[in-house]
Amino acid sequence: MLTPQSQDFNKWYNEVVLSTDLAEYAPVKGCMIIKPYGYAIWENIQKILDTEIKKRGVKNVYFPLFIPERFLKREAEHVEGFAPQVAWVTHGGNKKLKERLAVRPTSEAIMGDAFKKWIRSYRDLPLKINQWANIVRWEMRPRLFLRTLEFLWQEGHTVHATEKEAGEMAKTALNMYQNFVQDYLGIYCIAGKKTESEKFAGADYTFSVEALMQDSRALQMGTSHQLGQNFAKSFGIQYLDKKGKKNYVWQTSWGVSTRMIGGLVMAHGDNKGLILPPKIAPYQTIIIPIPPVGGQGWTNNKEKDKIKKYISEIEKILSDKEIRFNTDWRQQTPGWKFNDWELRGIPLRIEIGPKEVKERKVTCVLRDDSKKEIISFKQFEGQVKEFLEIFQERLLEKSKRFTQNHIYQVKSFSEFKEIIENKGGFIKAFWCSNDKCEKQIQEETKATIRCIPLQLKSRVGKCIKCGQKSKIEVLFAKAY
Amino acid sequence: MLTPQSQDFNKWYNEVVLSTDLAEYAPVKGCMIIKPYGYAIWENIQKILDTEIKKRGVKNVYFPLFIPERFLKREAEHVEGFAPQVAWVTHGGNKKLKERLAVRPTSEAIMGDAFKKWIRSYRDLPLKINQWANIVRWEMRPRLFLRTLEFLWQEGHTVHATEKEAGEMAKTALNMYQNFVQDYLGIYCIAGKKTESEKFAGADYTFSVEALMQDSRALQMGTSHQLGQNFAKSFGIQYLDKKGKKNYVWQTSWGVSTRMIGGLVMAHGDNKGLILPPKIAPYQTIIIPIPPVGGQGWTNNKEKDKIKKYISEIEKILSDKEIRFNTDWRQQTPGWKFNDWELRGIPLRIEIGPKEVKERKVTCVLRDDSKKEIISFKQFEGQVKEFLEIFQERLLEKSKRFTQNHIYQVKSFSEFKEIIENKGGFIKAFWCSNDKCEKQIQEETKATIRCIPLQLKSRVGKCIKCGQKSKIEVLFAKAY
Repeated sequence: MLTPQSQDFNKWYNEVVLSTDLAEYAPVKGCMIIKPYGYAIWENIQKILDTEIKKRGVKNVYFPLFIPERFLKREAEHVEGFAPQVAWVTHGGNKKLKERLAVRPTSEAIMGDAFKKWIRSYRDLPLKINQWANIVRWEMRPRLFLRTLEFLWQEGHTVHATEKEAGEMAKTALNMYQNFVQDYLGIYCIAGKKTESEKFAGADYTFSVEALMQDSRALQMGTSHQLGQNFAKSFGIQYLDKKGKKNYVWQTSWGVSTRMIGGLVMAHGDNKGLILPPKIAPYQTIIIPIPPVGGQGWTNNKEKDKIKKYISEIEKILSDKEIRFNTDWRQQTPGWKFNDWELRGIPLRIEIGPKEVKERKVTCVLRDDSKKEIISFKQFEGQVKEFLEIFQERLLEKSKRFTQNHIYQVKSFSEFKEIIENKGGFIKAFWCSNDKCEKQIQEETKATIRCIPLQLKSRVGKCIKCGQKSKIEVLFAKAY
Repeated sequence: MLTPQSQDFNKWYNEVVLSTDLAEYAPVKGCMIIKPYGYAIWENIQKILDTEIKKRGVKNVYFPLFIPERFLKREAEHVEGFAPQVAWVTHGGNKKLKERLAVRPTSEAIMGDAFKKWIRSYRDLPLKINQWANIVRWEMRPRLFLRTLEFLWQEGHTVHATEKEAGEMAKTALNMYQNFVQDYLGIYCIAGKKTESEKFAGADYTFSVEALMQDSRALQMGTSHQLGQNFAKSFGIQYLDKKGKKNYVWQTSWGVSTRMIGGLVMAHGDNKGLILPPKIAPYQTIIIPIPPVGGQGWTNNKEKDKIKKYISEIEKILSDKEIRFNTDWRQQTPGWKFNDWELRGIPLRIEIGPKEVKERKVTCVLRDDSKKEIISFKQFEGQVKEFLEIFQERLLEKSKRFTQNHIYQVKSFSEFKEIIENKGGFIKAFWCSNDKCEKQIQEETKATIRCIPLQLKSRVGKCIKCGQKSKIEVLFAKAY
């Protein structure tokens, strides 16, 4: 039995992650083992995103794990931001190294050096690459998937001739992430710009997509950075334009990580366990054979054979429709199996017992509402895909509704504090753009500016902290 | 222009790898950047092998990069074998660590600790997992793909109740690799057992597949280890059998790496560059549009439009048949493009100029023999798949013939030395199974025992070094 969400959301989260074989802690503090069920979700995420990334003309590569210390130091903001989190290799092959090697916390620095060599003229631009890799950032307060010392991610890096083109690419990546998170993970999210204090170390500016978890805390699901000419100038990345003039390039980088799996758990799960969107679920459907009497076992082989035969017809349909499924023939009782697969969040459960066989019916149960629908075999064949589609949409709608119901417009800072403390969610408010106000708010409430949403209509108001006139409306939240 | 293979094979190899954008050296000595063309080959290898691995009931996972020093030390042979090659993390998050962390040189140790926790009874067995990951082994004499400080690989790890089952699994993986290397990479290879001195550090025994490169040196393409109960005993991995008795488990591990890409280059390439097997090539076909006059450019748009239209018909056929292709509309001359795509090893080149359009013909050139075949559009539609299949088979046949022509049976050690020095290849000889003879041969000739082939008929002969009677026939070679 899981701890109810309402009692202790964090405890519920850990129990779900551990009991569904998503992941567990490794012996090195803050590192995790991604177990088969969790990794299968990551593989589905990879497959979809990799196709999307390639559609945008980006090619996969692999850069080294080790970055010489002097490289990391070249871009001043970058090293300042990342140095405190770096793991250092000091010895290799039984010898002390002359120069320490950083285990990559991100790859801008190591790629900057290559871009300098690869790029000569405008003909070499744009250059668009991506890598799927492991990343190490020393974390003091680790949480499975959300904040681990090592995690897996995808990092796209592009190089352009103009600021405009790089800006457009940063937006393209942002849109790709927003669409992916909404259309595949079924999680509603808000796209916006980060404030100066929250942007990527070394970027001109950073975009992110922010989602609300069911405990009303925000989770950053992905980021996209316009790096400007910062790395270009630090690493000397220049190109000859058509007139033969040397110019510094403009760059972007963007990434999403295994953290998204934590988002999946917290955005959709309930007291029974995970709820997985069909597009991402390792199995979209689980078939449970129901023995004739009381579910304690098979009375005879004849009965079992009949059920097996009927199930094989159902399996054939699922295979033909390319639906990922599993049939659970284990020894346990149907009730035990229901719980087990509910815990694992399988979208559609199919129950097949003697009654279904006799009447050529199929009992279908969707994971979120647990309503039983008994339909004919023919109906099943026609509608099973639709069931999964409806389920996928329903998750997004629910997530959208939840988020919108938890965006609060506040009139005073006392109201701000009260809502953040008692309700959580996003607080929509004006901000003077001074980082002093931002810091004070964070110190007093633990809420940070998640983003300056891109979709808001421009209005004028007063900074929620200092009262100064402002055109900048932002979303605050307590975040993971 | 490439250095001819006959003049300097190593130089040729480096030139091919660098000029085709497979990979290049990174700023950290011995590390490499896998560039888009090289990574596309790796992705194709991954896709195929991942499917094969899953077919064998193995599930993907991800284990941490960092292994505590005390874990690595637990299995005595294991630490002795790997310690000299380990990169050590000593600092993280601005602090000196209490215990050094090894950057994984292989994952038996970190997995052993997890298996101990995961496995309780016979019901938990067999346990079969795999991971695609980066590996670090400090190398003093790096070579792109063949020996780099960091490389990418796949490592399968399985746990079984009995020695027999583990032994069968080690063979299953070996067969999978042999089939993959032959059927997909088109490289003939010999499966065998390693000698005690060449086996994996910590294994009971090691199998490998060994292939011959065109400079007559051998390359190990993959290995599979029966780990016995060595890690089980070091890590305390036990299971309760059906009778309630505790037993140590039996384990295997097996892997192939980006080294295989080096094998592809050296097994098939020629003086014009790479030759890629269709099943692995990023593009299986390249279409080159031929402008009307002398190839210097398009005389008019009408002519170009006609060719474009005809090419789009060809592209449609290739798409329908799921053949990976590219059409090269760049500014350069056809001759330049021919060279460029020959360098990159594309199996099938299609040339389309005004003549082909007018007569509705297709000019086809296969990469290996460069013979022109002008066939009708209809024939092309019917035969294009076959062309690629023939090409794929031809590569394997050539590789097989080459290998068999370079296996020498020798009668004396002086003959052994003469052949190793002048001809290279495999030398098939009896060996007394004493590692003194093995070492002496290596010191005098630089040849090592590549494997004890599994397929040989059992015979009796005399050790090629000491003359002692022996039943063990082995293959010697100079190896990468």
